Amino acid sequence: MSKKHVFYFGSGNADGNATTAMKNLLGGKGANLAEMTHLGIPVPPGFTISTEVCTHYYLQKEYPQGLEKQVMEALHKIEAAMNKKFGDPENPLLLSVRSGARVSMPGMMDTVLNLGLNDKAVQGLIKQTNDSRFAFDSYRRFVTMYGDVVLGLKPESEEEIDPFEEILEAKKRAYGVKYDTELPAEALQELVNKFKELIKEKTGEPFPEEPIEQLWGAIGAVFGSWDNERAKVYRKLNYIPDDWGTAVNIQTMVFGNMGEASATGVLFSRNAATGEKKLYGEYLINAQGEDVVAGVRTPKEIENLKNNELIGHCYEDLMKIADKLDLHYRDMQDMEFTIQKGKLWMLQTRTGKRTGFAAFRIAYELAIKENLITKEEALLRVDPNQLNQLLRPIFNIEEKNKAVQEKRLLTKGLNAGPGAATGRVVFTAADAEKYKEKGEEVILVRHETSPEDIKGMEASIGILTARGGTTSHAALVGRQMGKVCVVGAGEIRIDYKKRQFEVNGNIIKEGDWISLDGTTGEVIEGVIETSPSEVVDVAINKTLSPEESETYQIYSTFMKWADEYRHLEIWANADLPNQAVNAVAFEAEGIGLCRTEHMFFNGSRIDAMREMILAENTTDRRKALEKLLPMQKADFIGLYKIMNGLSVTIRTLDPPLHEFLPHDEAEQKDLAEKLSMPFEKIHTRIDSLRESNPMLGYRGCRLGISYPEITEMQVRAILEAACEVKKEGIEVKPEIMIPLVGHINELKMQEEIVLTVAKEVFEKYGFDVDYKVGTMIEVPRAAITADKIAEVAEFFSFGTNDLTQTTLGISRDDAGQFLPIYVEKKILPEDPFQTLDQTGVGKLMEWAVEKGRSTRPDLKIGICGEHGGDPKTVEFCHRINLDYVSCSPFRIPIARLAAAQAVLKEKQIQSPPSHTSSAVTVAQTA
Amino acid sequence: MSKKHVFYFGSGNADGNATTAMKNLLGGKGANLAEMTHLGIPVPPGFTISTEVCTHYYLQKEYPQGLEKQVMEALHKIEAAMNKKFGDPENPLLLSVRSGARVSMPGMMDTVLNLGLNDKAVQGLIKQTNDSRFAFDSYRRFVTMYGDVVLGLKPESEEEIDPFEEILEAKKRAYGVKYDTELPAEALQELVNKFKELIKEKTGEPFPEEPIEQLWGAIGAVFGSWDNERAKVYRKLNYIPDDWGTAVNIQTMVFGNMGEASATGVLFSRNAATGEKKLYGEYLINAQGEDVVAGVRTPKEIENLKNNELIGHCYEDLMKIADKLDLHYRDMQDMEFTIQKGKLWMLQTRTGKRTGFAAFRIAYELAIKENLITKEEALLRVDPNQLNQLLRPIFNIEEKNKAVQEKRLLTKGLNAGPGAATGRVVFTAADAEKYKEKGEEVILVRHETSPEDIKGMEASIGILTARGGTTSHAALVGRQMGKVCVVGAGEIRIDYKKRQFEVNGNIIKEGDWISLDGTTGEVIEGVIETSPSEVVDVAINKTLSPEESETYQIYSTFMKWADEYRHLEIWANADLPNQAVNAVAFEAEGIGLCRTEHMFFNGSRIDAMREMILAENTTDRRKALEKLLPMQKADFIGLYKIMNGLSVTIRTLDPPLHEFLPHDEAEQKDLAEKLSMPFEKIHTRIDSLRESNPMLGYRGCRLGISYPEITEMQVRAILEAACEVKKEGIEVKPEIMIPLVGHINELKMQEEIVLTVAKEVFEKYGFDVDYKVGTMIEVPRAAITADKIAEVAEFFSFGTNDLTQTTLGISRDDAGQFLPIYVEKKILPEDPFQTLDQTGVGKLMEWAVEKGRSTRPDLKIGICGEHGGDPKTVEFCHRINLDYVSCSPFRIPIARLAAAQAVLKEKQIQSPPSHTSSAVTVAQTA
Repeated sequence: MSKKHVFYFGSGNADGNATTAMKNLLGGKGANLAEMTHLGIPVPPGFTISTEVCTHYYLQKEYPQGLEKQVMEALHKIEAAMNKKFGDPENPLLLSVRSGARVSMPGMMDTVLNLGLNDKAVQGLIKQTNDSRFAFDSYRRFVTMYGDVVLGLKPESEEEIDPFEEILEAKKRAYGVKYDTELPAEALQELVNKFKELIKEKTGEPFPEEPIEQLWGAIGAVFGSWDNERAKVYRKLNYIPDDWGTAVNIQTMVFGNMGEASATGVLFSRNAATGEKKLYGEYLINAQGEDVVAGVRTPKEIENLKNNELIGHCYEDLMKIADKLDLHYRDMQDMEFTIQKGKLWMLQTRTGKRTGFAAFRIAYELAIKENLITKEEALLRVDPNQLNQLLRPIFNIEEKNKAVQEKRLLTKGLNAGPGAATGRVVFTAADAEKYKEKGEEVILVRHETSPEDIKGMEASIGILTARGGTTSHAALVGRQMGKVCVVGAGEIRIDYKKRQFEVNGNIIKEGDWISLDGTTGEVIEGVIETSPSEVVDVAINKTLSPEESETYQIYSTFMKWADEYRHLEIWANADLPNQAVNAVAFEAEGIGLCRTEHMFFNGSRIDAMREMILAENTTDRRKALEKLLPMQKADFIGLYKIMNGLSVTIRTLDPPLHEFLPHDEAEQKDLAEKLSMPFEKIHTRIDSLRESNPMLGYRGCRLGISYPEITEMQVRAILEAACEVKKEGIEVKPEIMIPLVGHINELKMQEEIVLTVAKEVFEKYGFDVDYKVGTMIEVPRAAITADKIAEVAEFFSFGTNDLTQTTLGISRDDAGQFLPIYVEKKILPEDPFQTLDQTGVGKLMEWAVEKGRSTRPDLKIGICGEHGGDPKTVEFCHRINLDYVSCSPFRIPIARLAAAQAVLKEKQIQSPPSHTSSAVTVAQTA
Repeated sequence: MSKKHVFYFGSGNADGNATTAMKNLLGGKGANLAEMTHLGIPVPPGFTISTEVCTHYYLQKEYPQGLEKQVMEALHKIEAAMNKKFGDPENPLLLSVRSGARVSMPGMMDTVLNLGLNDKAVQGLIKQTNDSRFAFDSYRRFVTMYGDVVLGLKPESEEEIDPFEEILEAKKRAYGVKYDTELPAEALQELVNKFKELIKEKTGEPFPEEPIEQLWGAIGAVFGSWDNERAKVYRKLNYIPDDWGTAVNIQTMVFGNMGEASATGVLFSRNAATGEKKLYGEYLINAQGEDVVAGVRTPKEIENLKNNELIGHCYEDLMKIADKLDLHYRDMQDMEFTIQKGKLWMLQTRTGKRTGFAAFRIAYELAIKENLITKEEALLRVDPNQLNQLLRPIFNIEEKNKAVQEKRLLTKGLNAGPGAATGRVVFTAADAEKYKEKGEEVILVRHETSPEDIKGMEASIGILTARGGTTSHAALVGRQMGKVCVVGAGEIRIDYKKRQFEVNGNIIKEGDWISLDGTTGEVIEGVIETSPSEVVDVAINKTLSPEESETYQIYSTFMKWADEYRHLEIWANADLPNQAVNAVAFEAEGIGLCRTEHMFFNGSRIDAMREMILAENTTDRRKALEKLLPMQKADFIGLYKIMNGLSVTIRTLDPPLHEFLPHDEAEQKDLAEKLSMPFEKIHTRIDSLRESNPMLGYRGCRLGISYPEITEMQVRAILEAACEVKKEGIEVKPEIMIPLVGHINELKMQEEIVLTVAKEVFEKYGFDVDYKVGTMIEVPRAAITADKIAEVAEFFSFGTNDLTQTTLGISRDDAGQFLPIYVEKKILPEDPFQTLDQTGVGKLMEWAVEKGRSTRPDLKIGICGEHGGDPKTVEFCHRINLDYVSCSPFRIPIARLAAAQAVLKEKQIQSPPSHTSSAVTVAQTA
């Protein structure tokens, strides 16, 4: 006996169902049609050819054995169920042939409708419907579709003219009408003949009159469409494996366009935008499904169908079915229906797409109010990234759509900092501050940002850069500040002198309004109204109380649930006290990365810093460092107090020194005056610090090794601050992190300084403070020699930004020129700066964890690269047994949720439930 | 019974010998003293305290059990042998106490002479010698040394005044004399007393009169001196492990300063400069060893001792002993002797230091003429790097020394390209060409070089840069061209406008003469005469025939021997036909790296290249590429013909495109005119190609993926050239190498292009050519995923320059600022760009070899980074089973030798000879 390839459904019985295994085999559509049939819901009878046949077809270039026989048997079952005959001149059975993959790929593959019509069967259809116009309209549609899809006459590009369209237009001209619907039956019949002639002419073969031949042609075409260009691109963009294949669903045609007692429409069991549990739908009387989608006629809201007497109790049935399916699948359903001459048919049901808001609300209500799903299920129902919609300001969606329609979309960059911002354009950090002082909201536009711009970034509500990737300075710092951020918008041409930028022919000047969508990367001209995040209002701004915001309640419930499950601790990257406040608001369990250098850009600090860098000997350098010491100390005291006993990981100086120095001559002259040094000397020194590849240059612990006095000052500030805070009775846990270590000796030399200073400080205060010394793992050599490095390091923190740059040999600042091509051409599955490259960088991390813990079993290991807030990476970090992930404050909730999901997913793998879809449980007991 | 810590030697019997194990235990000096004793050579009796005691002493802070007893026993044996008594007022035994590590650390550790003297024993010495002046001179020297070394009164820095010195000077003033030797016995006696008072005052303790106390004090001081600053620094610089420890040699004092029948001197069994087998030595009558070294009196050549009747047959004995030791050790010996009142004593023998010339000649003669060592031994006796002395022009050594004495040494940079060059300074590539045309020899001085300078570099005989490391562009390209090259000379300040550079107060202008020593990195003002390499004359210039040059014969014999043993193939990096000619002259077995981009800098080629880069669409780019095609093809034909059937590995375009574009405005304007493009457009485009980290930027296969048409053109040139050559009946083996692959998909996409073009080309010519497609492994991700990459790659070539940069996160161009500090502070044992970092980068290589061959067992693997010519790296490459190393042509002989040594060393480890020192065999049969 050959394998089962064909799965029948109809009249309350189905071979398939909606278990995961069956979904993989039958595709989503086929599995759900079978499931609905089981539930006693009226579904036009049909059958599904499995995805395995597709895979077989692509591998072997032929159909598997026994397929033909099974198809014929299933076809006869349909004929029996419908009491019609395929190709019958009296009462013909018409079929639809549709694709249906494991996950929905809307519109990507081909469909053939009204199959089974020929010159004889069309007569049968006329007899059945008593409507020759309808019959010929169906026939001409079928021939067109068949010609396009099966016989390959569809033009390859949109510029070419569809030959069928050409004939149709000529016919309309001939009849002097504007719409297809105005053509009489005879005209449509003439069209059928013309179309057939065209087919004969183009293909050299007559149009196949034999329905079975038509059927096999359509099946082949649908399987073939799995590999068309559109489908391939879509799969690429959505990470759908090529070898999944599609199923083919062959189903009895039902018609919503058989007069006023017929209709077609869509229905949602809950509101897709808000998540509210209220049916929502639209329909058109006397129409086909495509008409609803096409938007030629405006559909009506479903409630209007209620009192339509022509359709009997179809409306009530529909409501009952929608509720039944929502309850059965325990999730919002997106359904398609057709009413044919007063009889309701369900054509499709699937889990509906929804906004982030809706996703959280639906899962929350299903779990809390309706008691239909467990909190574990609720946690797995939501996408952590969608939390951004609850945490960030968002645009009024109608206004935004309007703006796009008005062609105000200027360009698209990389979506580096989510949220929505509307503000006036400025081009310098100084201008940002000036505008801000006047109470204006500004968007800072730069080629790229540098540490010098920090204060201006802080003053802006959004940042737009022309260069750089998603972990460029602008992205990194902007995200950490919670700014809306679009980077690498390569099409904009900034002219700093004229204070304007040009993009695709538009000129935007300083002071003009633009809007940034940091979630999509869109840059839009003009103002778009934004709404703030209620969660942020409650958690940080405290303008609302928790009780006043339902959104906050949903958010906090999810966070509570997530915290119950997750193993990973979630820490925050926070450089300044105000960032630590946000971290605490989002319940960070420590600070995993405090970049001390960001403290050096305020007021007189930068002067002292510059003095230090330009010092010509150790004495002068120490003098400048002494000025910095109290400032750093004060910052650390602030951080410690806010974190109140949680770990605070402080990284010693990391960036190349030239980042702190002015690059234009005027500023250099100012500096020369300030420091009473000859300009030439300063200029030469700054010039000598210029580097070919600063990323791989004189930075990280290399600075602290050349100038031990810098590390010394920083360690002193860290530990003295700790003593001060401890003295006040507040618990404090400093962790000193040495950056860019590649060789154990580097860490050893820096550790020696820490030990010496610690001894001095503790003697001075008369008591000790517990502290740790650890290192970033951010160059491959550190990972490779992790066993050695763990001899000294008490903790590791993966700096995955730099580790990705070095492991892949890709500069994040320069990747803009080729990385998009790489992702587009599918060379890399994802931007490795957003989602960790698990095969490459991840391998080094696994190695480092294993080797590090082989030396020091209690080694604490975390990640503080930007990947720490990426859900997939969080899951990976859980899998390789890290202790914590550290991310920018606004990503903490995302990481908390992702960490919980990681545990739950692991649980599923270890003891998989018999069916992952909740639908199944009911289906099986039904 | 406690372990043996003390090894006696004297009167023909010794506990130790000169096996390797014994050398490790007794140090070189002690082992050789024992060995000489065995050979019946007169050695003053003594004993050695082993290095294990030193190690024990440092770990446990005390001496091992039983040491004291063993020392006393050995002391009594000396007393018996010499018939003297330690501290005896009649016939006192005096001792020397010296350090002696496993390898010589000349002058780094402490020595105490004349030990055993006190107020009583000095009277005995007077009785013995009948010379009270001699006795008190010995005594005052002993007290000084003891005070300095044992009691720690030696001043810490050279600026401080030695308190003993101060007293001595006062005494000389008091006696109105100039030299120590003019002081009478009474003055010396007074000095002894003064010195003792000083000791009492400074240390609070009286000078120890008890000889045994003196002895233990001296032993402790010598062990202690293992860890003094000088010794630590010396070990650092010479890679001597800290835990080896030193032995202490206690030996009967003999005196060369007991009158006219006494003498002291040094002796070499062969000439250390030329290797000639002819005794060479110097001596002083009535002097101590230190006098010979100090250079106050000018020593005489040893032949003058021949007819000195006062010393009897000492001269003849000395000659015999020298021959005996040379024969016994089967190597040139460096010996010290003392004649005390007509009796000859040998104080030391060791294998002598020698020049590269001498090393090769001695090993050659020992093996070929004297038949004393095997060719395996001969191969292991030489340092491959010393081959440079045979292959490169060298300075006349006297002239160079004179220049240094005249303070003409300007500065020191990194020794990037060995050899000696004298020429006139120029500052631009264009000037280099102009001077060259006029027949001048020039040295090109630049901040750093870029591909634009290639022609100027070719025209120069030496290159000097202010920036960059040993694998910077200048170093890499200079070395490959065989130029003398000093890079990273950070002290020079170039002023291109004034056409001069300033260094340490000297101004050198265009046209001035300077000399570069590329072997040491020295930059010297003025002309120094150079001698060309005879080997190069024979092999490349062919101005000499092989028979005319003994040096060439030695060279070629070593090469023949090396080729018999080595497993690794030695390939060459050669970009242009003239480099391939050199490669063939040095017998390269293939080309492992042809950088195609270096072909683009000649004449109109660069224009076509620039046109290609600036093209705005594929059509224009293809047009420009078509101009380049015939040029590349012609180059490849040239290479193939020269290599005549050997593999030629051609890398597709690698460097960032901006390297090909002009950076100053004038040149950009020229280019705009040439290409009839608006200047603004060109300027903007060049600006847009600017990168933050070009090393990690838009280069390597990233170019070929964005612009497949570039790869296409290059592959076409490679394969069409191959067909042309094959058509002429010449064998040809092209290997196409894709650079900077990090992900298998990159290689796949490039391979697809190769396959398509190959099909077209082979169809066009009507026949196929065997070719391979492979990749560089030069980013960590490639190594980590080598199993995947080997699915497509038919060969791997480790690009260890880039792999080192990415694995360590160090840019070779920027490393100059911190790498020297790292090497100096011993953070890294060696410059990782010169000698491969085996622990870090090497681990990735091992991994890649293992994983790559797990997928494709016959995967061919080589290395084409600069490390390919470094002997230690060659040994590593042999150990991890690479198939070949590829290096610049002038390094081929070095690599051949190193590859043979790798095999021989491995053989030694697998079946170690009972003694590695040849000395032993004889010693044991003696």
